[in-house]
Amino acid sequence: MDLKVIAFDADDTLWVNEPYFRQTEEQFFELLSEFSPRHSLETELLKTEIENLPLYGYGIKGFMLSMIETAMKITNNTLSAEIVKRILELGKQMLDQPIELLDGIEDVLINLKDKYRLVVATKGDLLDQERKLKKSGISHYFHHIEIMSEKDTANYTKLIRHLDIQPHEFMMVGNSIKSDVLPVLDAGGYAVHVPYHITWAHEHIEESVEHGQFRSVKCITDILSLL
Amino acid sequence: MDLKVIAFDADDTLWVNEPYFRQTEEQFFELLSEFSPRHSLETELLKTEIENLPLYGYGIKGFMLSMIETAMKITNNTLSAEIVKRILELGKQMLDQPIELLDGIEDVLINLKDKYRLVVATKGDLLDQERKLKKSGISHYFHHIEIMSEKDTANYTKLIRHLDIQPHEFMMVGNSIKSDVLPVLDAGGYAVHVPYHITWAHEHIEESVEHGQFRSVKCITDILSLL
Repeated sequence: MDLKVIAFDADDTLWVNEPYFRQTEEQFFELLSEFSPRHSLETELLKTEIENLPLYGYGIKGFMLSMIETAMKITNNTLSAEIVKRILELGKQMLDQPIELLDGIEDVLINLKDKYRLVVATKGDLLDQERKLKKSGISHYFHHIEIMSEKDTANYTKLIRHLDIQPHEFMMVGNSIKSDVLPVLDAGGYAVHVPYHITWAHEHIEESVEHGQFRSVKCITDILSLL
Repeated sequence: MDLKVIAFDADDTLWVNEPYFRQTEEQFFELLSEFSPRHSLETELLKTEIENLPLYGYGIKGFMLSMIETAMKITNNTLSAEIVKRILELGKQMLDQPIELLDGIEDVLINLKDKYRLVVATKGDLLDQERKLKKSGISHYFHHIEIMSEKDTANYTKLIRHLDIQPHEFMMVGNSIKSDVLPVLDAGGYAVHVPYHITWAHEHIEESVEHGQFRSVKCITDILSLL
């Protein structure tokens, strides 16, 4: 390997994210529990989110709007102001959440920072991701932050070109096979999967990856022995 | 002048934007006209938007959430599902709006494209701005698209460094004194103001700029004779 740049996914790779969504969803289901059983609420919310994805993209604001839309459908247009108010509060709480780094992250960054250029490659709301990185206290380890609307092959290829390196000099580390592994391999880079215990249904892929430039590790600190 | 890069603001510099917000606001005020006089609605919406700006940032999704919050306050928590539904529809229409290029834009780009590196420097939702650029049919004129969470001196300085040029080799063209002119002059670049007939209250500045690296023109095609 002739690596120059190691890119890290942010949500659920550097810090806790998906559990906050799950927690908010639970509160949302609770709020609407008199209107519909939990599993229907869950199905309806996911359906609404995925329908809205091309229009809203990833991130908390789109999630808030999809919760409001779901609540409207579920209550058969009898939605109360109180519920709307609670949804806005839930979303604002998420946007204001403290950052909890995942175990071992800072050790890994300290260990790698002088040997490689480290970058963050994430998707989601621009402002929200910037704010999280600032709050995380680890932004000084990174040379560049790339926030993409979608983590696909074209956008990774653009990032690699922008970093002025060859694809085989690029490695991506992340928790999503769909977003952090497959498109990176497709673009000619290396990819390391560090699974996280919760994955959003839309990111979930039932697929085992077999590829010369792919590795899976149990926890983030394991990447040190890979390199 | 020893210019290498000319950066264009997008909304209301390349294409029509603010009129769509004004139009949606009018429909929003109409929707709530039985609850409050127009001027109070206007004040309350702007206040809510500005309060939410640090949390939501710029763009249509934040605007939708602020309309919903304003409606909740204005109706004294008696907000009906019908109103929420209409607000979501209004926002989705905005996100799906066709792109209308401003007069002369394409002439200007054709004229400059071989002499300078042209870029777009805009703020707002990542996905929404990318989609607008794609729909605009003019994306092939640009070497780089920079979408910032805030157009301030620090972000312009980062952009200039990223473009691998000196500040005096950079010129920004846009309709907002606050976002496209003052921070660019502060960063050491050139700035050209091309006023647009409507400006969002939050972007409005009562200030006449006097600076050796600043010019104001009546319409975008006038920048050709400046260069």
